Amino acid sequence: MVWATGFIPQLRDRWVEADSMVCVGWDPELAKFPEHLRGLPVGEALKVFFEAIIDACAPYVCAFKPQIAHFAALGAEDVLLDLIAYSQSKYPSIPVILDSKRGDIGSTAAQYASEAFDRYHADAVTVNPYLGFDGVEPFLAHADRGVIVLCRTSNPSAGDFQDLEVDGVPLYQRVASQVASWDVGRQCALVVGATWASQLASVRALVGDMPLLVPGVGAQGGSASDVVRAGRDSCGYGLIINSSRGVLYASSGEDFASAAASVARELRDEIRAVK
Amino acid sequence: MVWATGFIPQLRDRWVEADSMVCVGWDPELAKFPEHLRGLPVGEALKVFFEAIIDACAPYVCAFKPQIAHFAALGAEDVLLDLIAYSQSKYPSIPVILDSKRGDIGSTAAQYASEAFDRYHADAVTVNPYLGFDGVEPFLAHADRGVIVLCRTSNPSAGDFQDLEVDGVPLYQRVASQVASWDVGRQCALVVGATWASQLASVRALVGDMPLLVPGVGAQGGSASDVVRAGRDSCGYGLIINSSRGVLYASSGEDFASAAASVARELRDEIRAVK
Repeated sequence: MVWATGFIPQLRDRWVEADSMVCVGWDPELAKFPEHLRGLPVGEALKVFFEAIIDACAPYVCAFKPQIAHFAALGAEDVLLDLIAYSQSKYPSIPVILDSKRGDIGSTAAQYASEAFDRYHADAVTVNPYLGFDGVEPFLAHADRGVIVLCRTSNPSAGDFQDLEVDGVPLYQRVASQVASWDVGRQCALVVGATWASQLASVRALVGDMPLLVPGVGAQGGSASDVVRAGRDSCGYGLIINSSRGVLYASSGEDFASAAASVARELRDEIRAVK
Repeated sequence: MVWATGFIPQLRDRWVEADSMVCVGWDPELAKFPEHLRGLPVGEALKVFFEAIIDACAPYVCAFKPQIAHFAALGAEDVLLDLIAYSQSKYPSIPVILDSKRGDIGSTAAQYASEAFDRYHADAVTVNPYLGFDGVEPFLAHADRGVIVLCRTSNPSAGDFQDLEVDGVPLYQRVASQVASWDVGRQCALVVGATWASQLASVRALVGDMPLLVPGVGAQGGSASDVVRAGRDSCGYGLIINSSRGVLYASSGEDFASAAASVARELRDEIRAVK
């Protein structure tokens, strides 16, 4: 059997292999870490915490999604790099999505693409569309990597600009259609929040079977079953349903990793059960 | 005399003190570095190059603008931190703008604000508006710092989304008006590219004397005199006119710093001469 290479084929294989559309985000907040880790140096605490999370949650996920802001605020880029390598070497079938939401003019976007793909060796990266096509193109130049473009986000103010009507269509739908037209190499996905299922359905109708990364389940309040019904693709998969805080901080005791795994498994099962 | 504190007052004082609206960007591209520095370890080359650029250009600038992507791609965050500290301690009247164009949901935006202001001690940061107000608010919570929001960028594809008409008004003008309405603390500025002077004039008409950061002069081709005529404020200042590559790589010889200073001085003089 010949396996296709690249982020999207890897993701499609993993959806089936794990029968899971759950993604666990890595958003370190030291104040929420288990008490027995709080006395450690920051880098050591991050390493112990996330290696345990990765090992415990791996059976239940289709992807991991480190959020770079949380590592950058701590000056912990080297730890992030080590954790991505740890996950990829131990669980090579699980793609790692660097959630950095970068966006800049072409020559600078090329540097951000290098940050994500050459430095961190991420399998995919999140990108902001506000700069237009030439801000996204340098990421697409890395042909085997995934480029996940913000479309409709899950935060309360998302509608300030994303919902504005352009020729009778909300801007986020215009973004979805544009990204679909850019995606000649089948590398793209979109970020569409879980907050309103009808928006997810409208994006799904525009982009065929393009994968959708869905934040906002769990701590942010979206319902997993609504998300699946509105957003799954023609194969019954098609979604990367992310939970970060709800999984990571399920327990502040020494059982944090097994508690996280339980939440991830329950979310996987809730998604699986949707008919 | 009591001096107001914070980025905007510092910038206004510096415009007058230096009689300059020139900003020099720090966009390291090692392949363009002077030949005698190319054999050095990366961190050392960055330090020698930019300390010389800072010292040579300081008399002619109203601000410095490090572009974080270029440092991140090299894994050189620590060097960036040292260079910002070098500039601020030696030239405390010159604000340093961290050009990182971050944008995320509120809890993550707070981490990016911490990255910019607590870790790098930047005086101001560039931010992407696509997430809406709650993606910008955590930056504004740092009351003495500047928040420079992308409005109309200078790249060829900028119009893909920024020029789309919403109720008869291009999206970038809607962004300008919204940012003006958010700016109760007088901390905001806007990024408006130099490519089309008429766009700059339309934004100036919407935002009063709010400072405008203008990339796209020099290597990207915009005319400084057109920019000044279209964009200056009621005091004759109001602009942060950035040039990066045109200044930094004016010479690849041992005279790189004096060549950079000449270009910065000429740009300052060209801007000063506009009636």
